[in-house]
Amino acid sequence: MTRSFTLAELAKAVGGVVRGDATVRVRSVNGLDEAGPEDITWISHEKYASRLRFSKAGAVVVDRHYGETPMPALLCDDPSFAIARILAVFAPPAAQPPPGVHPTAVVADSAAIGRNVCIGPHAVVGERVKIGDGCVLHANVFVGDETELGPDCVLWPGVVIRERCRLGKRVVLHPNVTVGADGFGYHYRDGAHHKIPQIGTVEIGDDVEIGASSCIDRAKFGVTRIGTGTKIDNLVQIAHNVEIGPNCIIVAQCGIAGSTRLGRLVVLGGQVGVRDHVTLGDGVRAAACCCISKDFPAGTVVNGIPAVENQQYLREQAQVRRLPETAAMWKELVKRIERLESATNHP
Amino acid sequence: MTRSFTLAELAKAVGGVVRGDATVRVRSVNGLDEAGPEDITWISHEKYASRLRFSKAGAVVVDRHYGETPMPALLCDDPSFAIARILAVFAPPAAQPPPGVHPTAVVADSAAIGRNVCIGPHAVVGERVKIGDGCVLHANVFVGDETELGPDCVLWPGVVIRERCRLGKRVVLHPNVTVGADGFGYHYRDGAHHKIPQIGTVEIGDDVEIGASSCIDRAKFGVTRIGTGTKIDNLVQIAHNVEIGPNCIIVAQCGIAGSTRLGRLVVLGGQVGVRDHVTLGDGVRAAACCCISKDFPAGTVVNGIPAVENQQYLREQAQVRRLPETAAMWKELVKRIERLESATNHP
Amino acid sequence: MTRSFTLAELAKAVGGVVRGDATVRVRSVNGLDEAGPEDITWISHEKYASRLRFSKAGAVVVDRHYGETPMPALLCDDPSFAIARILAVFAPPAAQPPPGVHPTAVVADSAAIGRNVCIGPHAVVGERVKIGDGCVLHANVFVGDETELGPDCVLWPGVVIRERCRLGKRVVLHPNVTVGADGFGYHYRDGAHHKIPQIGTVEIGDDVEIGASSCIDRAKFGVTRIGTGTKIDNLVQIAHNVEIGPNCIIVAQCGIAGSTRLGRLVVLGGQVGVRDHVTLGDGVRAAACCCISKDFPAGTVVNGIPAVENQQYLREQAQVRRLPETAAMWKELVKRIERLESATNHP
Repeated sequence: MTRSFTLAELAKAVGGVVRGDATVRVRSVNGLDEAGPEDITWISHEKYASRLRFSKAGAVVVDRHYGETPMPALLCDDPSFAIARILAVFAPPAAQPPPGVHPTAVVADSAAIGRNVCIGPHAVVGERVKIGDGCVLHANVFVGDETELGPDCVLWPGVVIRERCRLGKRVVLHPNVTVGADGFGYHYRDGAHHKIPQIGTVEIGDDVEIGASSCIDRAKFGVTRIGTGTKIDNLVQIAHNVEIGPNCIIVAQCGIAGSTRLGRLVVLGGQVGVRDHVTLGDGVRAAACCCISKDFPAGTVVNGIPAVENQQYLREQAQVRRLPETAAMWKELVKRIERLESATNHP
Repeated sequence: MTRSFTLAELAKAVGGVVRGDATVRVRSVNGLDEAGPEDITWISHEKYASRLRFSKAGAVVVDRHYGETPMPALLCDDPSFAIARILAVFAPPAAQPPPGVHPTAVVADSAAIGRNVCIGPHAVVGERVKIGDGCVLHANVFVGDETELGPDCVLWPGVVIRERCRLGKRVVLHPNVTVGADGFGYHYRDGAHHKIPQIGTVEIGDDVEIGASSCIDRAKFGVTRIGTGTKIDNLVQIAHNVEIGPNCIIVAQCGIAGSTRLGRLVVLGGQVGVRDHVTLGDGVRAAACCCISKDFPAGTVVNGIPAVENQQYLREQAQVRRLPETAAMWKELVKRIERLESATNHP
Repeated sequence: MTRSFTLAELAKAVGGVVRGDATVRVRSVNGLDEAGPEDITWISHEKYASRLRFSKAGAVVVDRHYGETPMPALLCDDPSFAIARILAVFAPPAAQPPPGVHPTAVVADSAAIGRNVCIGPHAVVGERVKIGDGCVLHANVFVGDETELGPDCVLWPGVVIRERCRLGKRVVLHPNVTVGADGFGYHYRDGAHHKIPQIGTVEIGDDVEIGASSCIDRAKFGVTRIGTGTKIDNLVQIAHNVEIGPNCIIVAQCGIAGSTRLGRLVVLGGQVGVRDHVTLGDGVRAAACCCISKDFPAGTVVNGIPAVENQQYLREQAQVRRLPETAAMWKELVKRIERLESATNHP
């Protein structure tokens, strides 16, 4: 990354305005404390403002109404969004295999491969698969028979998509993701667990991104569904017949059990567990590490194991913190009652 | 899935009896609420009975003693089991690579490959490996030196089995499973963690199924053992020297630490953690998200962090829920004692 | 493993002294209870001493000052360390692909491959990659453009390292590990989550070992860093911009959220979650299954959800266990107060 840009160039890229020296040249983005003279930094919250004075950054992105800054400033409406776009300016070209189908890839004759597709070394594409225009399949990717990918999907190395799944447009699957493995279903009878065939499939909406080593199981019957624009982090488990609405955020290591439904814009913090057949309404937000075992209506903030409404959780936790102290007070109280009883010759 | 079957054909397949029009033709299985005229549905519990009246299903599977139904019925002893078998009837043929060894696979000359084996593109089979009759190794599978697979195993793409492990008959490993990686063992000395060599192995019994991206570590010495008929879901961690008995159910994202032993028919809900050197007796059942740090005898139901017997857990949780209210009552109680003290001129 | 060694040979290998018959010949290592006449066992804690009497082991490793033993003994300063070294003596040769670059591997012409490197079947090495002397890349490994590996690294099958990452010397990545996938960062605006480009990288210090299917995300900008000598177990999630100090131990299924910093010698038990932007000082120890949501200073032992100092946690838990009993006492106390009130005609 040796490319550099003037502040004027960056302001143009993000639709902002320069205050101060527009010719200052930066080579990267960095945090307030870490940035040097060749870095641009930003302030997303007022609470960081006092640290700006000590920053060695060559330039800073601030809100349009922000006051004086010790270095040239890029003024804009939304500094966090602007910095995301500046990161895109600095980003090196996306890593991808050479254009076309690598000679070591194994692609079925019956597969329909779109235009401008890259298929990397040792990738395997099954019978009657459809790969949309502009897709990138990195090395060692497996796409099973009759699966369909919309245009501009990116499958990083080690991704496995089994047969008959469907991905929308611009879906990104990070390394070692598994889509469409059998759901976990057995029927116990005569001393053994008999496998319930998992004959359904998985459908993933447009602009979905799924993190490394996450698993999306195929449905028992019907469809396991991930809504448009939903973002899933690493090592997440999505069981069979789960339906996740659009624009949800599922942080790393969450697990969602079978047939559970999430509305739109649901946010699950890291390591959250959700039991089977639960419904979470639009915009439910679950704190990290909580365990959800029942339905919650739209907009609820939940926490705890088992998860309860967050205000209730906070009240409970405040009391749990005080339990050792309460136990001591308890002994004192019993003594006072005993004194009262002996004073009144009672009982 | 355009194949269709008459109700008479399905009844024959599951050993049931038709009541009503045996010529009704269905194309798939679906839930009570989702099913249409070309679907067959089922009732597994009486509690769903009231919804049957509103179902648009073309046919329904019910218990042999079930009353009138609004659509033709398939009567049988165990509707859930019957529907599992009907799913098998509707299931498309299992996805698998073409018969034989794919020309891109790398199979050691010293490997012994059984009859009717499929080895997919880019699979790698090491020295002196034995692959039983009828095994299917999908694309990009790795089987290390001297590992042995019983007949009819299925290894989905991306599975890695390291050297000297043993799998029984009909073992299924879903995509990206790792078997036989080193256990996690170090000895801290002179300012560094020194690796303890993990020279043991892994043995997996007949009819075991292991979910995507789960990890079964090889033993420090001796054997990490998964019992016959045990089913393990996705993203599960089984540490070195763990011994799991037959017919256990280990739901997604559980972690079992080193040298722990589970009896037969133990059930761990999702995200359960079990510490090292613990013994869980036959039939222990652990609720999702609990954390087990000590032994429990056969048949115990456990919950909580740390896990305690479930009745104890439920009593504790009922009180935790009431803690905020209890705190208010506490203040009231202290006031009443103060009033009593002043009334009795005490202390 | 049919090789055998005399006790004298083993004593020489670990720098110990034999007491009793130095010609006794053993073939493996085993636990006190499991060992037979051809096994050597060991006693690491006095508490196991009473079981030694019943052990059938052919020899035992004990502390230099340990008393009489029923079988020949290998005396040394540190039995646990000695047994680790004895395991190394018994260990079969490390499994690895044949020397050189396998003909099916795809290695860019611009890659710089050191001496004595093994690159297995179907491995893929990108443009301008540097592979240090003595590295072993097993089958189906992917190393992205411009990534650099120090000498003597071992990448097991299925490992994916994306572009521009750096590994030190003797780094071991177990099967299906992902290094350098995009961090999880989005900016919500106008009804959609916009991806924040993740243009940073990952640096992994010398002697780091990372367990199967663990994920180390690349930084948003700058570096995600794993310190020298740190050991990470299976299925662990390390988010973007995390910095882990040297010689930490991170047990299976832990998740560490973005920008969190761990000092040196931090130990996280299994399934621990640590939220973003937290700092844990040197030597912090976190109990399994706890959830850390704030900073803790050096040396703190923490537990609970949310994690608190361990002594506080233990006091709280003791009271939680007693809550059902306390509730009964509460009712009794209220009755006593009511009796007092009626005895004093109060209120």
